[in-house]
Amino acid sequence: MMSTLAVRYTAARALSTASVETAPPGPGEVEIAPAYVGICGTDLHIFHGDMDARVKAPAVLGHEMSGRITRLGPGVDGWSAGDPVTVMPLRWDGTCPACRRGHQHICQNLDFIGIDSPGAMQQRWTVPASTLVRLPADLPLDHAALVEPTAVAVHDVARAEVREGERVVVVGGGPVGILIALVARAAGAEVRVVEPSAHRRSLAEQLRLTAWDPAADDVSELVAAWTGGAGADVAFEVSGAAAGVETAVEVLAVRGRLCQVAIHPRPREVNLHRFFWREITLIGARLYDRADFEQAVALVAHGTIPAHLLISRVVPLTEAAAAFEALNAGGDVMKVLIDCGNEKNGAAA
Amino acid sequence: MMSTLAVRYTAARALSTASVETAPPGPGEVEIAPAYVGICGTDLHIFHGDMDARVKAPAVLGHEMSGRITRLGPGVDGWSAGDPVTVMPLRWDGTCPACRRGHQHICQNLDFIGIDSPGAMQQRWTVPASTLVRLPADLPLDHAALVEPTAVAVHDVARAEVREGERVVVVGGGPVGILIALVARAAGAEVRVVEPSAHRRSLAEQLRLTAWDPAADDVSELVAAWTGGAGADVAFEVSGAAAGVETAVEVLAVRGRLCQVAIHPRPREVNLHRFFWREITLIGARLYDRADFEQAVALVAHGTIPAHLLISRVVPLTEAAAAFEALNAGGDVMKVLIDCGNEKNGAAA
Repeated sequence: MMSTLAVRYTAARALSTASVETAPPGPGEVEIAPAYVGICGTDLHIFHGDMDARVKAPAVLGHEMSGRITRLGPGVDGWSAGDPVTVMPLRWDGTCPACRRGHQHICQNLDFIGIDSPGAMQQRWTVPASTLVRLPADLPLDHAALVEPTAVAVHDVARAEVREGERVVVVGGGPVGILIALVARAAGAEVRVVEPSAHRRSLAEQLRLTAWDPAADDVSELVAAWTGGAGADVAFEVSGAAAGVETAVEVLAVRGRLCQVAIHPRPREVNLHRFFWREITLIGARLYDRADFEQAVALVAHGTIPAHLLISRVVPLTEAAAAFEALNAGGDVMKVLIDCGNEKNGAAA
Repeated sequence: MMSTLAVRYTAARALSTASVETAPPGPGEVEIAPAYVGICGTDLHIFHGDMDARVKAPAVLGHEMSGRITRLGPGVDGWSAGDPVTVMPLRWDGTCPACRRGHQHICQNLDFIGIDSPGAMQQRWTVPASTLVRLPADLPLDHAALVEPTAVAVHDVARAEVREGERVVVVGGGPVGILIALVARAAGAEVRVVEPSAHRRSLAEQLRLTAWDPAADDVSELVAAWTGGAGADVAFEVSGAAAGVETAVEVLAVRGRLCQVAIHPRPREVNLHRFFWREITLIGARLYDRADFEQAVALVAHGTIPAHLLISRVVPLTEAAAAFEALNAGGDVMKVLIDCGNEKNGAAA
């Protein structure tokens, strides 16, 4: 056993950095020294105490990460200590009806590592070797922490079947919204982002994305003018807000597709008449599969996702609680990473 | 000019049978002697006054019909007086964005004949020859009045891409729900109908469809038991009720498809989280195209749709108002037809 630092959720709005014991990796497992861990919207939900029914405190959070392998458990082949990796944090049972139909990523008994089991916000993290995804040697590890949310965006754009030349409206310009906009653009779509925060709109503009302010612009009229009265081919609902759902439905063309990405904990009023009238489709999208993850690695590595522009701040593990509080308060941030201290210290080398 | 009888909607809950003048058919038009005209849910909405913004009184209703051609306008080829026909009651502009993308049936400026322009509840009816659909000579014309709602069902089943062996839940066992169930079964699906009316459930059982009572049965549990915990592949929401939407979402498997058929005039609360969690798809479906209509003719002609079991009552044109009132009051009916008096009188021969 060795002792390392971990950030643990202990109760609503309480995180503590504590020393924890780590056991050597078991059969089929690997131990990783996490380098950087992104804070995700879901982590904030957990921090608020909204997911206490699912997350058993004390819990180590974190599922957007990069790092290096430190130790291999028995029976693990193809990997070596020092390899740079990220983790696709899904463990499925392989036997439920969803798995049997090939939808393992939304297994009916899914273990989402970092929510349902311990996550990456610690100095040593043990995961099944089957979850590892290889990173190119020259990809900076802070950039690589964006692979997981990029995989979400890749999955969403694939679910919506975005095609070259299509017109796409992304409602909500937070990290996942911006990543969807970038992935859709890389697929050949023309993209508009709808986002109330001036900071996030200005970041979108820096990425050469046109961004509209729903408080000041008449988004429906702008879309009508943009599309010659047809409406958009695809809308992504990434805002999680009631008004966002309304906008996403309203802007769509006849036979348009609405991809539902954001989490709406409570039922929302939806204009079903419009779905009928225009034969619109609503497509639920959740997580990713391995192909999405590997495409995400390539997009980040090739700079299609300019990670350096999306990372607003990097804070040390010992200041994670303050970072959660700052994100919670809103403000002018996009993605915040936690630096686990392993790279500077050379601990993983 | 000649004078014939027509049923006209004059104000909310008021229908009158009046004598109206009919002009000879113009270029590209045909005059029909309607035989039977079904009363549709939309006709009841109009009767309630709910569609006064769209329907200008006095208005002749009716779009589910059969009849025989009486006169041809100039330039109409391929048709003869006496031909048995039904009408696909759609007129599109051909120039709007939806038409240009091949979705003429949901043209952004659609003229739905029988709502936006005069319908079939009269003794002579003039329509564009382009709307005619030929009927087999041996198909009884009362049965043929069910072709239009059957075309709706064919379109819905096609939109939902129902495949052989799939498990399908139809929420709402009115005329369209039952027709969807029959068309889905003909496509090879296993079907269950959810319907609160004992009369409609017993009619469904007569058609060898299993029907569940949402007031007495735990539909989610029944679906779980039926599908080994997977959930249904497809649900059709044909009830128009808030509880129906909830049931249709709840019973679906991972990657299930919900086809939205019923009209919900006001926004409905929808469990978007379930769409996300199970990657469900919602598919809006409206009307039909010519291929749907021709398939519907074949299904009615071949008895796949046992029209005689679905027609509850046939009333003469002069008693249309009473028929609307009776339907309005609810009660034990499925489809009610209006007999325009043309067949008995031999007027169309």
